[in-house]
Amino acid sequence: MAINDTHDPSLQSWVASANSPDGDFPIQNLPHGVFSTADGPARGGIAIGDQVLDMQAAAGAGLFDSAGKAVAGAAAAAGEADLRRLMATDAETRMALRRQVQALLRVDSPLRPQVAPYLVPMALVRMHMPVRPGAFTDFMTSAPHIAAARPARAQGTLPPCFHTLPIAYNSRASSVVESGRPVERPLGQHHDGTAVVFAPTRALDYELEFACLIAGGNPLGTPITMQQARQHIFGYCLLNDWSARDVQMWESVLGPFQAKAFRTSISPWVVTAEALAPFRKPMPARPADAPPLPEHLFDAGNQADGGLAIRFVARLRTPRMQDAAEPGAVLTDTDFDSSSWSFEQMIVHHAIGGCNLEPGDILSSGTLSGIDLSSAACMAEITGGRVPVAVGPAEQRLWLEDGDELAMTARASREGYVAIGFGECAGRVLPAPHVPAG
Amino acid sequence: MAINDTHDPSLQSWVASANSPDGDFPIQNLPHGVFSTADGPARGGIAIGDQVLDMQAAAGAGLFDSAGKAVAGAAAAAGEADLRRLMATDAETRMALRRQVQALLRVDSPLRPQVAPYLVPMALVRMHMPVRPGAFTDFMTSAPHIAAARPARAQGTLPPCFHTLPIAYNSRASSVVESGRPVERPLGQHHDGTAVVFAPTRALDYELEFACLIAGGNPLGTPITMQQARQHIFGYCLLNDWSARDVQMWESVLGPFQAKAFRTSISPWVVTAEALAPFRKPMPARPADAPPLPEHLFDAGNQADGGLAIRFVARLRTPRMQDAAEPGAVLTDTDFDSSSWSFEQMIVHHAIGGCNLEPGDILSSGTLSGIDLSSAACMAEITGGRVPVAVGPAEQRLWLEDGDELAMTARASREGYVAIGFGECAGRVLPAPHVPAG
Repeated sequence: MAINDTHDPSLQSWVASANSPDGDFPIQNLPHGVFSTADGPARGGIAIGDQVLDMQAAAGAGLFDSAGKAVAGAAAAAGEADLRRLMATDAETRMALRRQVQALLRVDSPLRPQVAPYLVPMALVRMHMPVRPGAFTDFMTSAPHIAAARPARAQGTLPPCFHTLPIAYNSRASSVVESGRPVERPLGQHHDGTAVVFAPTRALDYELEFACLIAGGNPLGTPITMQQARQHIFGYCLLNDWSARDVQMWESVLGPFQAKAFRTSISPWVVTAEALAPFRKPMPARPADAPPLPEHLFDAGNQADGGLAIRFVARLRTPRMQDAAEPGAVLTDTDFDSSSWSFEQMIVHHAIGGCNLEPGDILSSGTLSGIDLSSAACMAEITGGRVPVAVGPAEQRLWLEDGDELAMTARASREGYVAIGFGECAGRVLPAPHVPAG
Repeated sequence: MAINDTHDPSLQSWVASANSPDGDFPIQNLPHGVFSTADGPARGGIAIGDQVLDMQAAAGAGLFDSAGKAVAGAAAAAGEADLRRLMATDAETRMALRRQVQALLRVDSPLRPQVAPYLVPMALVRMHMPVRPGAFTDFMTSAPHIAAARPARAQGTLPPCFHTLPIAYNSRASSVVESGRPVERPLGQHHDGTAVVFAPTRALDYELEFACLIAGGNPLGTPITMQQARQHIFGYCLLNDWSARDVQMWESVLGPFQAKAFRTSISPWVVTAEALAPFRKPMPARPADAPPLPEHLFDAGNQADGGLAIRFVARLRTPRMQDAAEPGAVLTDTDFDSSSWSFEQMIVHHAIGGCNLEPGDILSSGTLSGIDLSSAACMAEITGGRVPVAVGPAEQRLWLEDGDELAMTARASREGYVAIGFGECAGRVLPAPHVPAG
């Protein structure tokens, strides 16, 4: 996944909208997703400008047959309604598929007439989950976030293991949904200081996170080394780890459970590891007083390029803003430098005891809070549930309210390269369902 | 799932071994599993005495066709290599299938000649996972266990929420394996008091648990009520939640992760909820000083019969014992009364925020330690890593050693009914794999 000719900034597409400098999906990006149209079932596609290349139709029409059996097979897998088989494909074939798709969409492609019929306007599609993940593991790689999230007795400190391993917990995979799905305010238990209360959460929060989806995997009992880790990254998406803070405060003994299990949202376009190659950068320096990095988590190459030059923004659109053209109030403006660990290190730690990772598994960074308040990536840090944040003229919030929409976007950029985006990870809060009787 | 004629203690089978009073699999049990033989692929079967009824073959031969379309469909699902589709079948059809299988295997069955060809001796089969679970949730329902497992500052106390909700965490589903698979000693990080050490765990432990497998499920956003919960239990199995205690001590910030992710073993025969109906009993009384049970977790019927009369035993077989006929040293002898919560309450709590449960999900009780040391269900409680336990002549253990085999069995019994068993949940500890270089 080195920088190569597929990242050439002079590349243009015959899909004119892909050549806009502000767009998320130039020909250098080519993320995978699963979509449906009013008249067709869910199938896999690739985003290009404001269009979706229907990979099921394109592969079915034989557009990839000349590229060899492996690439044609990967193209067919990229057209399926669940991208697990594509994610089980090796890195070399995935790179070859990228080249082939790019060749078809380049401004000088002789196959434009053959490809054009398989473009669907993005405005007409509904997106689906790119894969039904077998697991969703949530890490906690931001030092400012973990310091803020510690129990009262340890407020502001880092757990002793923070700099020797990427802290993580297993989260719930079944309730991960694609952007756009609403989020019912969850029912749950909390303690109001006097008694246990069972009610819709009174402290609904978002967490701006960045996630990778696993390619391939490892057999049970066989760890992954730092040298092998990168080939196990299929791609990346934005992730909102919706949280019920009052429930979390009350229930947490073995980590978060119902406080997080009700819903997690991801952006539906998976930006591939290949597309992000130019935006790799050195990892943040370890603090001078941190213990040595354990050898199995160290790789000189990873220290040099395990970071990612990506800026993330979370915006809140209140019900009053829904009709306006404005994009909403910026609550978070952060970047991946806030992570003390690379995804490669997260993968190695995850598998070090022999745990088997599988294609489509989601590994998420955790809340990407930086040091400044403007980069705080959840309301627990922004307001602490005590000091409201202004979100517009005469509007403020302590937590998310019914009708609020939280939308995350991100952009990878680097001088000399065409910036790429991730699309949106958004969800609107709905009122709680009726409380079921005992 | 009331007690009915399928539990009649006078029922006998023409499979003679099923009529032994000490056997696990009398005609009143009929658990589902997935097996293979040397000459055939994995498929579903039902245990009867020392035989397996090959459901794929039996259903394929039309033995269930006369029972109606629903039952014939369930029988076919019971013959598949993954029982998820059977677990998605409604409770009424599952009960009808039980009746039909029992009718075929009864001593007075006129179809004996037609059924007999589809029996396979258990000695010739290899068992597989009954289902590839989409999730594995581990609860912590034993008060003695949680009091012992608390951090030093809170040793011996219960978390404030213990009696108002069943505490749980998401565990790792991909590494759950069937009994018999060996368990490599996992590599991991711990702190030895002076420095961080990366090494094979020095504190390998077992946890004797009891798990349910989910039938049906609930749509995302739609909680399950106590009245609905029971129909969502397909069946039960034994579960060994292998644990690396030194890793757990060091890593736990958001709950256990690598300390548990390396391997979990289950008994491969799933004893159905229908088979266990006669062994239901009142739940243990709540302590007088416990806060009131929240309304959504209360159901008078569940208080009266949410308990289960099951006794569990864990035995250790050291390498020196492998050749002997002896079953091993009993480390744990406990029962389900040690759980403060019923599986129905675990299900309701799990879905209360809208989290969707799916067929085949595993919900486990957590370590079933009772009050007495003889019922302590893990070595952390038995030895504390400090006081060795004798496991045979001139042998003792602080933790599990390479070559040790831990085997769990269980038996449900009640006066006037034929006792049923679960088979074995066993695994032998292998040395750690080679430490990969950074």
